[in-house]
Amino acid sequence: MIERTPEQHSEKMKKKQAAHDKIMATKTQEKGLLIVHTGKGKGKTTAALGMVVRAIGHGRKVGVVQFVKGAMTTGEKTVFDAFPDNVEFKPMGEGFTWNTQDRSRDIALAREAWDEVKRMIADPAYDMVLADELNIVLRYDYLPVEEVLEAVTARSAMKHVLITGRNAPDALIEAADLVTEMTLVKHPFRSGVKAQPGIEF
Amino acid sequence: MIERTPEQHSEKMKKKQAAHDKIMATKTQEKGLLIVHTGKGKGKTTAALGMVVRAIGHGRKVGVVQFVKGAMTTGEKTVFDAFPDNVEFKPMGEGFTWNTQDRSRDIALAREAWDEVKRMIADPAYDMVLADELNIVLRYDYLPVEEVLEAVTARSAMKHVLITGRNAPDALIEAADLVTEMTLVKHPFRSGVKAQPGIEF
Repeated sequence: MIERTPEQHSEKMKKKQAAHDKIMATKTQEKGLLIVHTGKGKGKTTAALGMVVRAIGHGRKVGVVQFVKGAMTTGEKTVFDAFPDNVEFKPMGEGFTWNTQDRSRDIALAREAWDEVKRMIADPAYDMVLADELNIVLRYDYLPVEEVLEAVTARSAMKHVLITGRNAPDALIEAADLVTEMTLVKHPFRSGVKAQPGIEF
Repeated sequence: MIERTPEQHSEKMKKKQAAHDKIMATKTQEKGLLIVHTGKGKGKTTAALGMVVRAIGHGRKVGVVQFVKGAMTTGEKTVFDAFPDNVEFKPMGEGFTWNTQDRSRDIALAREAWDEVKRMIADPAYDMVLADELNIVLRYDYLPVEEVLEAVTARSAMKHVLITGRNAPDALIEAADLVTEMTLVKHPFRSGVKAQPGIEF
C-alpha cells in the first residue's frame, strides 16, 4: 500500500469524485444490459439475486429461471413470494441427472428451462430476466450458445438479461455489456464449516 | 478450453459430485462467518444484499449499516420495508464529505456508523450484520482496523458479519472465513451507458 497523508487521501478522493462526476455527466444512454457473473468464487447467483431485489424494489417485473437445483432455494423463495406481482420464479433444475445414460433427458430439461427464459425475454411484461446457472448447461453442451446469443441480441432495447455460472463461454462474454468474475480468495468449507442457511442457500 | 466428449463431461461431473458429497459429509461445523467482498468489480454490495435477502427469507434478523451514500438505495429499501421485523437498515453514509477541511466531521460520522455496527454485533437479536462499504472508511483511516477486528473476533459463535468495499485491509482478509474478490471484466459505463434502476441502485 502506498503511504499517503490524510490530506493527500482527501485530495485524491475529491479529484476522483470530480472526475467521476464529469464522466457520469457524459453517460446519457439508458439501455437493457446483458450481464454475466462468472468465475469460481462465490457470489455469482447471490449478486444476481441482489439485482433482482433492486429491480423488484423499483416496481419492475422480473423473471427468474433456475437451471441448477439448489443454487436458489427457500431463502429467496420466501422473499419472492412477498412480491407475487413482481417476480415469476421457475425452479427448473430439479430433474437434471448430469448422467451419460440420461443425457437426452437432461438436454430435454435444459431446453424446457431455456424455453421459459426465451418466453420471458420475448415478453414485454418482463423488465429483467435471470437465467441462473445457464453457463453450466452451455458448458455441458446441453444447449448451443448460438441460440442464447440469438435470443439476447433480439431482446427489446430496455430489457436486462442476467446470466450466471462458472465457465461462461467466450462468445457470451464478448456479447455482454457487464461481466464480473467472482474470484475465490478464501472459503470456509476448507476449514470444516458446512453450508448454512442465509449464506449458502 | 479443454475439448471433451459429452461422455467425458458427464463422467467428470459425476466424479465431481461424488467427491463434493464426500467432502460435504465431513463438514459438520456450523458457525457464524466473517465474510468480506472486495475487489474493483461490481457485485460486492449486491452479493451481500443477496445474502441479506436469503437470511430474511429464513426468518433471520439482519442489521444493515451503510457507510457510503448510494451504495444501497431505494430499490432494496422497498424490499427491506416488506420485512420490518427482519431488517434494520441504517443509511449512515449521507453526511460524509471526503474533504480535508471536514476530516474531523467525517471521522465522527464514521464512528457513529461504526457504533451502530458494534451494537448490532453485540446484540444477540441480530443473526447477521452487514457493514456496507466499511472498507472505504478503513482505507481512509477514519476508523482503526484493530477496532473492527476486535469487535468481529468477540462476536457470538453463530453471528455472521459481512463487510464490503474495495481495498479490504490485509488484516481483515486474514481474519475472514470467506473472501470473494469481484473482478471487473467489462463495464457498460465505458461505452456511454448511464447508471440505471435495478442495476446500479
